[in-house]
Amino acid sequence: MDFFYSKNIEGKNIILNKNEMIHCVRSLRKKINDFIYVSDGNGVCYYCKIIKIESETCRLQIVKKDKIEKKIKIHLFISPTKNHKRIEWMLEKLVEVGIYRITFLICKNSIRKTVNLDRLNKIALSAMKQTQNCFLPTIDDCLSFNDAFRLIETNEKYIAHLCYDNIPFLSNSIKGDENKCIFIGPEGDFSRDEVSYALKKGFVEVSLGHSRLRTETSG
Amino acid sequence: MDFFYSKNIEGKNIILNKNEMIHCVRSLRKKINDFIYVSDGNGVCYYCKIIKIESETCRLQIVKKDKIEKKIKIHLFISPTKNHKRIEWMLEKLVEVGIYRITFLICKNSIRKTVNLDRLNKIALSAMKQTQNCFLPTIDDCLSFNDAFRLIETNEKYIAHLCYDNIPFLSNSIKGDENKCIFIGPEGDFSRDEVSYALKKGFVEVSLGHSRLRTETSG
Repeated sequence: MDFFYSKNIEGKNIILNKNEMIHCVRSLRKKINDFIYVSDGNGVCYYCKIIKIESETCRLQIVKKDKIEKKIKIHLFISPTKNHKRIEWMLEKLVEVGIYRITFLICKNSIRKTVNLDRLNKIALSAMKQTQNCFLPTIDDCLSFNDAFRLIETNEKYIAHLCYDNIPFLSNSIKGDENKCIFIGPEGDFSRDEVSYALKKGFVEVSLGHSRLRTETSG
Repeated sequence: MDFFYSKNIEGKNIILNKNEMIHCVRSLRKKINDFIYVSDGNGVCYYCKIIKIESETCRLQIVKKDKIEKKIKIHLFISPTKNHKRIEWMLEKLVEVGIYRITFLICKNSIRKTVNLDRLNKIALSAMKQTQNCFLPTIDDCLSFNDAFRLIETNEKYIAHLCYDNIPFLSNSIKGDENKCIFIGPEGDFSRDEVSYALKKGFVEVSLGHSRLRTETSG
């Protein structure tokens, strides 16, 4: 099953952009009249026939369309790790398990304050195609801790931290079938002020277990 | 909290080997009469005082001893991935979340048939120290699919595969508080013969969800 990505859907036709065309036509040697799958990254999967190959694009005819609904949307707010490689593999894994959205959070103790968004979007696309899960998450650039609150769209809100002992486990606090967001702090954890601010905004504080996890593992 | 590893425990004393001594004395500049934590990798955590520093070792006096029992031991049997880097990060994450034992499984569709056990043991030790979880897993070298069965010590046994549809999810099949083992196959999945063999040996077949996960993500 060969799987591609396009947002460029015109009625009964889909256009693959240059990168996807190169993958389809040059790497995988697909030809006119071959059939492939295309996702719009938003839960729709198209079964298509290749009808025209040009120098920079490839035109497809839609044969069948399936829509998958994501039952629970999870929005992760996470501080970037010092080592960018660790963000990259975390993102790959998040896409594989079906994350909805990722926002990078600059906290008081964050060491890294930028991410390579181009590279992260490429990794996300590649992971989506590999996993064939039809959902390409939105990746937001770095935002300050306070500014990030305006992106919250869910009622269920969690903040994982280690500022003090005996915080209930996420696995015991989490509810079933609503959309959720969770805040994960930097290597040096959230500050107490940041935790207090989130609690005032209706967040539930949670622990991710007995082990001291790395930031990207928590994510 | 500075955390080290040693198996060399003699009554009231612990000896750090050369690598751990270098980490303790040269990197972290610990001196005689400083206090550190040491784990035996098997759930015991010692609070110790440094009493002697020699050229190749370091002698500690035990001040306090705590034993942590692992409630559920999970033994993962997994085919190595083609790319060794993917095995390495998987191992780091497995140690962080508290795996008990890992055995590498050479299946019909395994592309890689060896692992760098030295390197994996170093990564496991480093992850244990970073996480401070007191459990260093046993890592077994590659074994053929059939030979691996003799290492199984648990009654609860799962095999995750994609050979056919409608396999019940692991999350629905798994029981609470017994030790368990799980088999995860290579990039090309287990063969049908391998699945049949496991089922004859009392395994429960399971699915890891709707997404097509990479081998190391499944692990």
